[in-house]
Amino acid sequence: MGTELMILAPIAGLIALLFALFLIARITKMDAGNERMREIAEAIHSGAMAFLKRQYRTLIIFILAIVVIISVIGLSTSGEGSLKWQTAVAFAIGAFCSILAGNIGMRIATKANVRTANAAQTSGLNKALNCAFSGGAVMGMSVVGLGLLGLGIVVLIFNNDSSIVNGFSFGASSVALFGRVGGGIYTKAADVGADLVGKVEAGIPEDDPRNPAVVADNVGDNVGDVAGMGSDLFESYVGSIVASIALGASLGIGAHGEGVLAPLLIAAIGIIASILGTFFVSAKEGGDPQKSLNKGNITATILSIIGIYAVTKLILPETYEAMGHTYSSFGVFIAAVAGLLVGFLIGNVTEYYTSAKYNPVKRIAASCETGTATNVITGVATGMASTAIPIILVALGIWAAYHFAGLYGIAMAAVGMLSTTGMVVAVDAYGPISDNAGGIAEMSKLPPQVRNITDHLDSVGNTTAAIGKGFAIGSAALTALALFSAYTQAVGISTINILEPDVVIGLFIGGMLPFFFCSMTMQSVGRAASHMIEEVRRQFREIAGLMEGTAKADYARCVDISCQAALKEMIAPSLLAVIVPLLVGLTLGPACLGGVLCGTLVTGFLLAIFLANSGGAWDNAKKYIEEGNYGGKGSPAHAAAVNGDTVGDPFKDTSGPSLNILIKLMTIISLVFAPLFI
Amino acid sequence: MGTELMILAPIAGLIALLFALFLIARITKMDAGNERMREIAEAIHSGAMAFLKRQYRTLIIFILAIVVIISVIGLSTSGEGSLKWQTAVAFAIGAFCSILAGNIGMRIATKANVRTANAAQTSGLNKALNCAFSGGAVMGMSVVGLGLLGLGIVVLIFNNDSSIVNGFSFGASSVALFGRVGGGIYTKAADVGADLVGKVEAGIPEDDPRNPAVVADNVGDNVGDVAGMGSDLFESYVGSIVASIALGASLGIGAHGEGVLAPLLIAAIGIIASILGTFFVSAKEGGDPQKSLNKGNITATILSIIGIYAVTKLILPETYEAMGHTYSSFGVFIAAVAGLLVGFLIGNVTEYYTSAKYNPVKRIAASCETGTATNVITGVATGMASTAIPIILVALGIWAAYHFAGLYGIAMAAVGMLSTTGMVVAVDAYGPISDNAGGIAEMSKLPPQVRNITDHLDSVGNTTAAIGKGFAIGSAALTALALFSAYTQAVGISTINILEPDVVIGLFIGGMLPFFFCSMTMQSVGRAASHMIEEVRRQFREIAGLMEGTAKADYARCVDISCQAALKEMIAPSLLAVIVPLLVGLTLGPACLGGVLCGTLVTGFLLAIFLANSGGAWDNAKKYIEEGNYGGKGSPAHAAAVNGDTVGDPFKDTSGPSLNILIKLMTIISLVFAPLFI
Repeated sequence: MGTELMILAPIAGLIALLFALFLIARITKMDAGNERMREIAEAIHSGAMAFLKRQYRTLIIFILAIVVIISVIGLSTSGEGSLKWQTAVAFAIGAFCSILAGNIGMRIATKANVRTANAAQTSGLNKALNCAFSGGAVMGMSVVGLGLLGLGIVVLIFNNDSSIVNGFSFGASSVALFGRVGGGIYTKAADVGADLVGKVEAGIPEDDPRNPAVVADNVGDNVGDVAGMGSDLFESYVGSIVASIALGASLGIGAHGEGVLAPLLIAAIGIIASILGTFFVSAKEGGDPQKSLNKGNITATILSIIGIYAVTKLILPETYEAMGHTYSSFGVFIAAVAGLLVGFLIGNVTEYYTSAKYNPVKRIAASCETGTATNVITGVATGMASTAIPIILVALGIWAAYHFAGLYGIAMAAVGMLSTTGMVVAVDAYGPISDNAGGIAEMSKLPPQVRNITDHLDSVGNTTAAIGKGFAIGSAALTALALFSAYTQAVGISTINILEPDVVIGLFIGGMLPFFFCSMTMQSVGRAASHMIEEVRRQFREIAGLMEGTAKADYARCVDISCQAALKEMIAPSLLAVIVPLLVGLTLGPACLGGVLCGTLVTGFLLAIFLANSGGAWDNAKKYIEEGNYGGKGSPAHAAAVNGDTVGDPFKDTSGPSLNILIKLMTIISLVFAPLFI
Repeated sequence: MGTELMILAPIAGLIALLFALFLIARITKMDAGNERMREIAEAIHSGAMAFLKRQYRTLIIFILAIVVIISVIGLSTSGEGSLKWQTAVAFAIGAFCSILAGNIGMRIATKANVRTANAAQTSGLNKALNCAFSGGAVMGMSVVGLGLLGLGIVVLIFNNDSSIVNGFSFGASSVALFGRVGGGIYTKAADVGADLVGKVEAGIPEDDPRNPAVVADNVGDNVGDVAGMGSDLFESYVGSIVASIALGASLGIGAHGEGVLAPLLIAAIGIIASILGTFFVSAKEGGDPQKSLNKGNITATILSIIGIYAVTKLILPETYEAMGHTYSSFGVFIAAVAGLLVGFLIGNVTEYYTSAKYNPVKRIAASCETGTATNVITGVATGMASTAIPIILVALGIWAAYHFAGLYGIAMAAVGMLSTTGMVVAVDAYGPISDNAGGIAEMSKLPPQVRNITDHLDSVGNTTAAIGKGFAIGSAALTALALFSAYTQAVGISTINILEPDVVIGLFIGGMLPFFFCSMTMQSVGRAASHMIEEVRRQFREIAGLMEGTAKADYARCVDISCQAALKEMIAPSLLAVIVPLLVGLTLGPACLGGVLCGTLVTGFLLAIFLANSGGAWDNAKKYIEEGNYGGKGSPAHAAAVNGDTVGDPFKDTSGPSLNILIKLMTIISLVFAPLFI
């Protein structure tokens, strides 16, 4: 059993990419429908690409700056444990892989949407489901494929030097920052702009092609839920593996680097499990797409567990010593499975709190009868209550992982949780594709039975989105904790004592950062939306015949305005995430920084769950009322529900998800720059 | 210099009580106005007393239960460091002192309100200010007088045995739990019930005597802002002294218990400083009551600083050793002054974020123009942003206190901050008295110039309330930290290592508790309000002639309903606060409990500031619009502002302030029961 098996990791990555190519071929072969459909789809597609292009322009500057900084520090310092210039190379590769994954995913998602609409029209539910899911699976396979291929190559080239390999994860984090924070601001600015001027001021319905912001709004769905979510999970996926590699090496697990090999092989097996899982996703006419997606997910999960067992049993030494304790390979298996279970359960808890099938959302809907204020209060209370079970699950996961496998177990729990990332992203990205398909069907006036099918797919997409969000938060927390463990090893501290004032101060300041960060991103959405609103108003005012439908709106300009605003608005919160760990590490030292990271992790996780779940619950309470409960559309309860939903928009789609990035990015920066803090 | 000086502490307490008696005599001598005024005032007064009586009935059961539990454990265990039955005695005395302080304060506040209204009518601004402030000062003097008298006696009787004296603080905490959590639910249930049925359904104005809940609503102001705030600061005041006594003893500061003596003397001097400060509160006709209150406050603060300098210089040894470091008496002075400054500055930051004079509230008011949702989002963002400076101030305070005086310094910073508690409570309780005076003027149809004066006093009261809230949160955090330091000494641990899984799990779970607790208290308000709403509706339905003004509403029944509901609703959140530390301490051990306490402290502090400040900001944004901005009363912006204000009600008056209690109560319970966890 040797490290030559490491080659299996990039090979599995390649297989994922080949499978993605196969899916792409299948999707592009499908018919994109009539002229009108193609036209609308093309607008969304080119809008999405325009967003990416503009994002890249800023991103490239950011990446170059970091590359220069790392290289200069790396070349000007030397000696054991100093920052290395090669870390900049790994960083650039990591960033590039994440960018490429997002680009492929977006490109295909904006092709699959129109084909899903057309499949719903010509062939029915199963074919439409298949198309939407295949589109999502391209994103999923790109994420895990490029993640493991890129990381595997970096590990092999740099002979598994952790201080270099960490750079790959930092690169992934940087792209996620743009994807989640910039993307989150973009999607809500477009949404609010489209709704406020279109629906409220001009009085035209949702998804009306006369609305200049309608394309930007549809682009936003892809930006947020495909590219944003993808980059977020790419970061978690890569981060968890990097952390376990670093710990496997620094703790010296296995005489021949078996502790490094195991997470790579688990990831490789997870890819195969996810690919096999996708074949179980298909529904008969009149069947339940949810069940079909579940079947795929469960298959991938079971196969992963078997794979994890095999890897831990065959690769890891039967017992190993770490930090004065003896652990067994079976303990690592338990840790990884604990992670997998925690991810699965957090997703389900999220669904409980945000689905209209259960009491919390029903109670929120009922509170709409007494007005907006009670709706907001009930939603906030629900979101806050929803933090309890995920926290307890994570606590149990940490306990099990640590008890059975020590610090290495924490990282392996994250690896286990993220082993089915390919499947999770596929199921998640399926949502916005179905949503877009519905929009396209509406805009091109397809018959109502088509809309029925896409609505069915879309409503399932809401559930999968909720589960995906919970999973993303849980994985961010566990990945950050794994990276944090690696950080403590990197700075060589075995004690971060709360009773020391530095550490308490760190906890307080770290705990505050997510609040401050959320405040910034919420206000960013407001400001970015105001630019959008001005532009939409201008077009209605200046383009003659727009309201009559005789002239065309300038969609591209709206996309561009929203892009610019989002990228400008993300600067301040991003700087906060980047500068604070460096500043604290350099001035107050690694123990205080440990306190900061821990404080940020705790309140960041809590706020992320609170914001995502209250936002999701308001959204579904509104939909529940729109189904005819409490007076249905147009009732006072509905008006209250719409207000709650609008409050929830930046909660669930901007500030909440951005916290996933904050907690991971701050930790990976601390890990990469650890040599400077000692 | 000997411990016989300790007698000065209860003597200063007595002086405060004598001064309170003098003020009471002055207030009761004043004229209570015409028949109508007396009648309304009597209804509020007896309503307040009814609330207290009902609260006592539940409280006594709670107190007896704790007394029995502590006694049984105390009598059945023995040996060094075990729980002592005498702790139950100290507990009961502490609870009794806090109850008595609240009772006196409420009794006089509900006499001063009508006299303030009458003074405004007959003698003008200065006399009215004087009456309202004197009423507040009775509460302030009762808090510090009974606090220091009771505590001083307990210290003397039990020969300063920390494990017994801690019980006094626990007793104070238990009463604060009822005052803040029960009181907080009561006041908002009454408020919402009165507004929703009265203003919205029946269409009668605010403070209309036909509204059956109007008295309950006015009682609520006293319950929340007089008794609730008083019991909260009583708890902080006593807790900070207890913690410093415990640390002074366990760290062996001074050969003859000087470390124990110093905080008692600082508190004694603070009382004298506060009494002298009250004489500076008076305004000329047309003068600014705010300036006059500031003058009193600043005088008390400066005198306190001088007193702290004298005590540390004369009492403490010039240098002392603690935990392997050498500190100086001047270091302790710096620590105490740092605490005093932090309290002062946090209060001012709170004012910045919640007063319509500054940008944050103006921005919130502006956001009302685009509707309720943007108002809510902007308010949430403002509240979240407002956590940054207080956290940094507390961090600086901790740093200074620890750097210059070690663990003892942390407790002395809290003592320093709370040395002017008498003045702070006086200024704070002045607010609801003025508010009530305005309500009485309105209900008894006094001429508009009277209402002008009371409105002026009331608007100043809003500022002082904001400052008081900030101070209460800051003092809760510092007191909890001081008690936490004493706890670590009591369980004999010098390291709580974040890198151990128990501690991380503790931090996660502890961090979650404030979220869960807030969720519970928010929902409690909703349920309690619904009982009130039913009762008000019933009276409008069943009492013939009520709307026409020919029959009288049954005010007492509304007070009682709201009481009952509040006391029932506070059970679940209270049990959470009591049971979790015991459960964690007994099962997972003192280190994990340390993590829990620290997690709760960090997120509790953050959430308390966030909730208090967003609530306060929404309130003042509404008032700002009512002054005629953005269309004034009746405009769409006003409607949005009203919704925001309603969301903010449980934020700022129930859930936020209740967190002060949660963080202190959990810590004092851990400290008292520490012997069981070792």
